[in-house]
Order: sequence, then C-alpha cells, then structure tokens
Amino acid sequence: MGRDAAINAAERLHRHPDTAVSVMSIDNFGIIESTLREGEQFSNTFFTQPQKGEIAQLLDEFGVEYIELTSPAASPQSRADIEYICGLGLKSKILTHTRCHMDDARMAIDTGVDGIDILFGTSSILREFSHGKDIPYIIERAREVIQFIQEAGLEVRFSSEDSFRSDIEDLLMVYRAVSGMRVNRVGIADTVGVADPRQVFDLVRTVRRVVDCDIEFHGHNDSGCAIANSYCALEAGATHVDTSVLGIGERNGITPLGGLIARLYTRNKDLVRSKYNLPLLREIENLVADLVDVNVPFNNYITGYAAFMHKAGIHAKAMINDPSTYEALDPTDFGLTRYIHVAHRLVGWNAIRERASQLQLALTDEEVKEITARVKVMADQRRIREDEVDALLRDYHSNSLAA
Amino acid sequence: MGRDAAINAAERLHRHPDTAVSVMSIDNFGIIESTLREGEQFSNTFFTQPQKGEIAQLLDEFGVEYIELTSPAASPQSRADIEYICGLGLKSKILTHTRCHMDDARMAIDTGVDGIDILFGTSSILREFSHGKDIPYIIERAREVIQFIQEAGLEVRFSSEDSFRSDIEDLLMVYRAVSGMRVNRVGIADTVGVADPRQVFDLVRTVRRVVDCDIEFHGHNDSGCAIANSYCALEAGATHVDTSVLGIGERNGITPLGGLIARLYTRNKDLVRSKYNLPLLREIENLVADLVDVNVPFNNYITGYAAFMHKAGIHAKAMINDPSTYEALDPTDFGLTRYIHVAHRLVGWNAIRERASQLQLALTDEEVKEITARVKVMADQRRIREDEVDALLRDYHSNSLAA
Repeated sequence: MGRDAAINAAERLHRHPDTAVSVMSIDNFGIIESTLREGEQFSNTFFTQPQKGEIAQLLDEFGVEYIELTSPAASPQSRADIEYICGLGLKSKILTHTRCHMDDARMAIDTGVDGIDILFGTSSILREFSHGKDIPYIIERAREVIQFIQEAGLEVRFSSEDSFRSDIEDLLMVYRAVSGMRVNRVGIADTVGVADPRQVFDLVRTVRRVVDCDIEFHGHNDSGCAIANSYCALEAGATHVDTSVLGIGERNGITPLGGLIARLYTRNKDLVRSKYNLPLLREIENLVADLVDVNVPFNNYITGYAAFMHKAGIHAKAMINDPSTYEALDPTDFGLTRYIHVAHRLVGWNAIRERASQLQLALTDEEVKEITARVKVMADQRRIREDEVDALLRDYHSNSLAA
Repeated sequence: MGRDAAINAAERLHRHPDTAVSVMSIDNFGIIESTLREGEQFSNTFFTQPQKGEIAQLLDEFGVEYIELTSPAASPQSRADIEYICGLGLKSKILTHTRCHMDDARMAIDTGVDGIDILFGTSSILREFSHGKDIPYIIERAREVIQFIQEAGLEVRFSSEDSFRSDIEDLLMVYRAVSGMRVNRVGIADTVGVADPRQVFDLVRTVRRVVDCDIEFHGHNDSGCAIANSYCALEAGATHVDTSVLGIGERNGITPLGGLIARLYTRNKDLVRSKYNLPLLREIENLVADLVDVNVPFNNYITGYAAFMHKAGIHAKAMINDPSTYEALDPTDFGLTRYIHVAHRLVGWNAIRERASQLQLALTDEEVKEITARVKVMADQRRIREDEVDALLRDYHSNSLAA
C-alpha cells in the first residue's frame, strides 16, 4: 500500500471509527450511583440517616437509574439506613452491595432493596492474600447466593474484584457461569486503579462475547483514567457505570458523576440532556462536598469555578464569535454561565472591545487597541482586577466624548 | 468460530495487547511542562519573574525534558521573563509558544530559547471564526517561519489547534508538509477537550504513518480524559506530552503533571523512578497551588490527602498482608506514607488488630473482635476520632492485664 493509500485508509478509520472498530452504541446506559456505598469508604465520610436521605432524594431527582448503599452487614445503623431509603418511594432503583455470603444476602433481602450487588475477589493476588478461595468454590458459592436472591424476586449482580489483575481464564469461567445463572449484571472492577482505556475496552469486549446479561464497570482513579475507562467500557458493550458525587471513595476515589456526565454529554448532548436534570449537578456536589468537609476542586468537571472561564486573547476572540469554538459543553445546559477574563497581560483587543460593548461604551478600534496596550502594561506589573479595566474603558469613553 | 475458540482468541488479545494491536513502546517519552505557558492562561495565574524562576528551577530538578514559556509577544514582561529563565542554566530545554508569524518568531529567537513551538489553527470551525486562512496558505506561512527558526539553529515544533475537529485531509496535508521541512515535532491538540482515548489513539497512529519527526500531544480536560488521552497518544506513537502542575490552564486545564506521572508509573515504575525526582512532586504542587491561590484538590493524584488512605474492612485486611493488593502506586517512592483508617463503622477486626500491634498492645483475637464491635457501635452514632479507638484499645489492654 502506497503512502496515499495508507492515508486514505487511515482517514476512513479516523472518520468512521464506529464501523471500523465495531464500537457499540453507547445510547443505552445507566448510572449506578454509589456515593452512599463507595462514597462511605472515603476517609472523611460520616453520613447520618437524614443526610443519606437528602443525597438519595437529589440523586433521584437528577435521574440516576440506581442508587447503591453500604451493606446492611457493615453495622446496625447501615441496615436501618437502607430500610429508610427504601421507604422514600424513589424512582431510582435501590441496591445494596454485599460480600457473596448467604448471611449477608439474607440480611440484604430483608431490607426491602430492589437488587443486591454481590462481590467476590477473583484475582490471584487477592486469592492469596485476601480470602483464599478458588474458582470452582467461587462459582458454587455464587450459585447458592444468586439463586437465593432470585427466589426472593430481586435483581442480582455478580462482580469480580480487581478484574484487571485477575487471570483471564478464571474471570471468563466465572462470568460465563453466572451469566448462565441469569444474573441481571456482571461487574468488572478496576479496584486498584491500574487499568488503561484500551485494556478496559479489550476486557469488556471479551466479556461481552461470553455473557448475555448487562455489564457494569467500576473504576478507581489512582492513575487518572476512571472517566476514560468508564467511557471505553460503554464503547465496548458495558451497560452501566458506577459513579460517586465528586468521585469520593477509597483512596482518591472512583469515576465522578459530573465527570462521566461531561464525557457522555460530549458524545451525545441531546441524550444526556433528556435523561438527567443537569442543573441539579451543582447542588448535589455542593451538598456532598459540605457533608464530607472538602472543597469542590478548583478544576472540577463542569462546576469547577474556572470550567467556563476564558483567558488567552486568541481564545477570547473566537469565543466572542461562536462559543462552540472553545467549549465542549454549553454552560447554560447546567445552569451556569461563561466568563471572558480581560484583566491580564494575555488579553487581546477583541476581548476588550467585547467588554466595552457589554458596558455600552462606543469606542473606536484605535481606542480599544490603546486601552488593550495599557491593560497589558498594568497587568505586566501586578495582578489587576476586572473592575480596573472597566474603569479604564469608562475613562477613555468620557475623554473621547469631552474631546 | 465456536464460543471456546472466541474466548481463546479474546484471551490472547487481553493477555498480549501489545502484539495484538501494535501498541508502540512508550519507553521513549518526554514531558513538555507548560505551567509557565498554558498555566498562565489559568484564570488565577499571575506569576512574577522570581516566581517563574522558582517554578522553572523545581521543574528542572524534577527532571522534565522541556519547559514551555508564554510568547514574548504577549507583553514586554513576558519577553523579559523568557530571557531570565534562559539565563538560569537549566538542564531542561526552554521553549516558547508563539503564533505562526514572522514577527513572533523573530522576537522569540532573540530571547535565547532552545526551541519555538508554533501554532496554527486548522479546524474548519476555527478557520471560519478565528483567523480565516486556508490550508495552502497555512503551509506556505509555516515554511517561511520554520525555515527562519531553523536557520537560527533552534528546534521547531508545528502544531495544529483543535486537531480533533479539523478535517483529516487538511490535517495530514499540513503535517506531511511540515515533516518534509524537517521540523523536530508536530503537535496534535485537543484544544477544547472533546477527544476520547480511542479517537486519540487512531489519530496519532494515522499521523505517525505520515511524519518522520516526534509527535507531541496537548490535551484539555473538559470531559475528563486528558491523562488517558495523553497515555493513548504515547501508545499510538507520540513521543511527548504537554503537562502543567495541577493541570492549570484555560478553563479546567490540561493533563496534570502528577496525573501523567501516576499513569506512566503504573505502566513502568522503574523507568519513571529513574527519569524523575518523584519526591519533589509534592513540593512543586504546593508551590504552584500557593501562587495561584487554589487548594490542591482533595482527590489529587498521588499527593491528594486521601490518595493512600484505606478504609473498608476488606481493603484494610488485604493491605496489611500485602500493600500492593490495593495500591497501584508505592507511596514511599513519592516520599509519602499510607494510612489505614480504623475509626469508622466499616472497620474490620483485622485492621483493629493491626492497630493494636502498632501500639504494642497484646490482645487476643476475641478481645479485638469485641473492640471492633464497640467501635462500630460508637461510629454508627457519630463521627469518631482515631485516638478514641486507641484509647479503647489501651483500656481493654489494661483491663485484661488487671483481670
């Protein structure tokens, strides 16, 4: 193949990735919101029952498909809290997350949940150090627990733990077996945050070939890929992603709800707008940040204070002509506004002209360019405020009227 | 192909992704650290010359291959700052980032930098709204500027802007042309933060086929994939990644230095340890956070306060046996320590036993289990402190000695 032919083939691949690499449609996905389970494993978290209720109500109003709660076996209050949340009459289905034990399953069924997420470690490293079971034992234990939950009429998910460091043969053997038991979902978990996007895509695609049920992905963020991995899991045929508000969880946490929304919105804006009450995101994040005593990170997805703030001159010029030039997300969909920052030395005269026009000050282009130069001189020496630029614009305008 | 054969093929793919999908080795990569360029576009940033010097010194000591600075055309002080940094005698090569204009190139050459990163928007949306040039014009303008920089003996990079919304034919035509002009690097930029990992892999692999030079990736984080995209770019044949400390930049920023390090460390710990002075990361982040007046996010990669904090009982048990069970990164490589949190209702008795042993209190397993149950009762009712658990352990120990 000559160079041009290679380019043409590559070009088709780039333009039509869906047909070229058989990416699944990701239009059929659900969120399993785990702030009240994984989020309880964040070091700062101590939620009271009313606080759990408030979070669950908001998540329900936001529109998440599932809300996952801490195991009733964790403590008596954890159990009482599940019963309380189940009594709120939410539209979101309520799940709890337990070990693959009959005692835990029995206790969970009694709480009134819609489904039970059961977990069994399968990686060899965990087999050796954590619970010491082998694969046939896992399958038989799973069968007993799964049947028991199904007989109670509840949904059941079976997840491996640390799936990306597990032996692939063990993993597929277990998934195929539990799929044959007609579980609702199998879970793939990057428990330690080691997986990368293309590994996730490959493993989910492989599992997709051996199970008939839904596939859930749970990804930790230790190496910064939780959002990307979740997205690649959906592309490979997963149907559900675990999230928590601000990503709170063990260590530095899991896929954040807002970050996943940002990614999915970028792929299919209309679908995300129709499924979720997007302007509620900020309120949910503020509530959880407040309860666990952290600040919303300055660079948080969508709601971070600088997420829609534009500064460099070249950016500001294009933004003024058409905001989509430099914005993947429309802030108004989230009840937010964009802001063009003009009081700094990187400012361009188009941004200053736009500011003058917002202030309804008629100035010539020459005047605007002079003011821009003065702003740069001032901002080269010290940090200046936005209202100082406004004052400068007003001064010039008065002087030009007086002249 | 039967089901078993499909599993076997899939299994090989999962086990040997490098051979199956021709991922490039990522052992030959460099960091282009842009805190002093992209980071200046963060809304809060105003760096004085001594502050820029301090940041550059630390980045040099950390071991980044390149330090990129704001264009000398931005303001007179910006120009003076470049000359100052060039005079520090750092091991890192110094770059500045300018528009593809002769005036800017001339000014940049005079500052004493090692190389110039030139930028030209190529996406049709930017062509229409930002500068209105067409492709042959871009190539001819590029030729003039590139030759001028090369004649001055400097490195030159040519980057498109908004590469993922650019027409692929335009893009490849430009990259092939500038590669023919023997630029040192071409740059691929996800300026708006819309790209996903598999798109990045595909585009970089395509560009890799048409250029002979290095490839640099610059990724914004609006939809949460900057780290993953940078990593996939390296897997597809890119050689350099742009970072900034804490990711500061336009809007919510770009690939954070610490996040990229976390990802690359997970892939090749020994290489990352040998290339960079990892314990300095925390100091660099604290300095920049302080200068731009933000908090290091609670969930920051590696240095966030909970990054090595373990809470759930099942985690703590395995962690005590072998920390690698639940840790992708070894905190000691970064001058940090892990912490197992025991004062909460999710605690397991293995963690309490470990704490007793740290305190050198001899307690039987039965006693430890009793204490664990008491901790759960207390922690079910209110947030408790770690030292309350210690007090409880000491009480039990005294009583059991007295009995």
